[in-house]
Amino acid sequence: MEQVSTNRSYGGTQGVYTHDSRETGTPMTFSVFVPDHAPGVKLPVLWYLSGLTCTHANVTEKGEYRAACAKHGIIFVAPDTSPRGDAVPDAEGYDFGKGAGFYVDAAEEPWATNYRMRSYIETELPALVASEFPMADMTRQGITGHSMGGHGALTIALRNPGRFRSVSAFAPIVSPLNCPWGDKALTGYIGADRTNWRQYDACALIEDGARLPDLLVDQGGADNFLAEQLRTELLIKACETAGQPATIRIQPGYDHSYYFISSYMTEHVAWHAKALI
Amino acid sequence: MEQVSTNRSYGGTQGVYTHDSRETGTPMTFSVFVPDHAPGVKLPVLWYLSGLTCTHANVTEKGEYRAACAKHGIIFVAPDTSPRGDAVPDAEGYDFGKGAGFYVDAAEEPWATNYRMRSYIETELPALVASEFPMADMTRQGITGHSMGGHGALTIALRNPGRFRSVSAFAPIVSPLNCPWGDKALTGYIGADRTNWRQYDACALIEDGARLPDLLVDQGGADNFLAEQLRTELLIKACETAGQPATIRIQPGYDHSYYFISSYMTEHVAWHAKALI
Repeated sequence: MEQVSTNRSYGGTQGVYTHDSRETGTPMTFSVFVPDHAPGVKLPVLWYLSGLTCTHANVTEKGEYRAACAKHGIIFVAPDTSPRGDAVPDAEGYDFGKGAGFYVDAAEEPWATNYRMRSYIETELPALVASEFPMADMTRQGITGHSMGGHGALTIALRNPGRFRSVSAFAPIVSPLNCPWGDKALTGYIGADRTNWRQYDACALIEDGARLPDLLVDQGGADNFLAEQLRTELLIKACETAGQPATIRIQPGYDHSYYFISSYMTEHVAWHAKALI
Repeated sequence: MEQVSTNRSYGGTQGVYTHDSRETGTPMTFSVFVPDHAPGVKLPVLWYLSGLTCTHANVTEKGEYRAACAKHGIIFVAPDTSPRGDAVPDAEGYDFGKGAGFYVDAAEEPWATNYRMRSYIETELPALVASEFPMADMTRQGITGHSMGGHGALTIALRNPGRFRSVSAFAPIVSPLNCPWGDKALTGYIGADRTNWRQYDACALIEDGARLPDLLVDQGGADNFLAEQLRTELLIKACETAGQPATIRIQPGYDHSYYFISSYMTEHVAWHAKALI
């Protein structure tokens, strides 16, 4: 792992790092905020998975998480959303290929070699963080994300029971089986057999018996993607039907942007802190 | 004035607006955050002047001011740093021409026609804000800024006694008479006669008898520009000599970036709120 940059911020260190990923076969960049702490003290880790078109930089610059993470003593890790580089296959459109890894391990060609964001986020990057950041307490992890990254957070937490003490999401894609973004991405990466998609669909995973410790979701009421792509109502129904505890809030007037995410970031970090601290 | 965009954020409205400026002879873009408020209530206005290379967008995206402004009920206005457009003369380098208006009214050609950021910020834009934002209480104004914008905030406040109830700055250029950025900018815009520069030099204005109501400055101790360009020590000395009340803090380890600015933004907004609310 190489350090790209560090900046002092909010009584902590905001770093950006790069490493050669075994899973994606490419260099991968991610950011880590580490609040100041006494020597030997270990801090819990909050993962933030970003949405379509984003890199680590969007939330790092616009997410407004550092004040709350410094207050609670939480490490904040923000990975990229896909493999990168000229050698990586890409597609037209913002919703497939680079910047749109959808947190799956692709089975279809030409994507299968590099597009392994599921294994990268579930396995490779946590091991790297654990080894390179000795103050990270990997027994206390939370996960959140936005849009495609909310989908990633929910599905990764549902598939890994016990891994995350706390789970939340901002405007998540709740059911790739039931929206155009999901249809395009999973057809392209996984193939046409929709039974294989259920492991990448938060609502289907809940229907199939997976559970979260609890769940906080904020969703902008004026989000242009709500009706067709995000479909929060399907998650509400899945949680109600399954008895999955969840607090799912529609925030009137808010859209899909970081102006929305940052407005509720402090509350989400506090929600995670209750379970992590 | 035309609205470019609005986004709901932190229980308020973050807007971006454009208008044809009489002073610069160009369209000018600026952002305004208005916290929600009861009908008929008027809110104080905090001006934020940005640094070299910036537009309104840098602080709007990275400044992390909305939480504090919403809490205290303060309107936050962020102008651009120069005239823009293909018809506007420019120069090589990031520190002169577009993005580097230095909050002066240029006297030298070819700059004098468009580079009128002093009059734009002191006169034209406040009148526009007053007329377009009827909830803005122009009898309660504060001003702050970063780097070149800290210079702008200090000099505009010093030249307009009674206009601003509160003044602060992040890593300001405190004396253009005594740094390479100032030397280049004022020679280019104002001309070689350095006596004309004193109206654009915070330390010189204080030496010449101008006073601020009070002053808060935060300066990163690891700021690469501190020793040669910013020279905080000259402001400390000018304030001490003149008996100008000031709290000037060196923050160890912090650099010149928005990672620094955002870390102290909440304290600055609270400082302004004490005088404005």
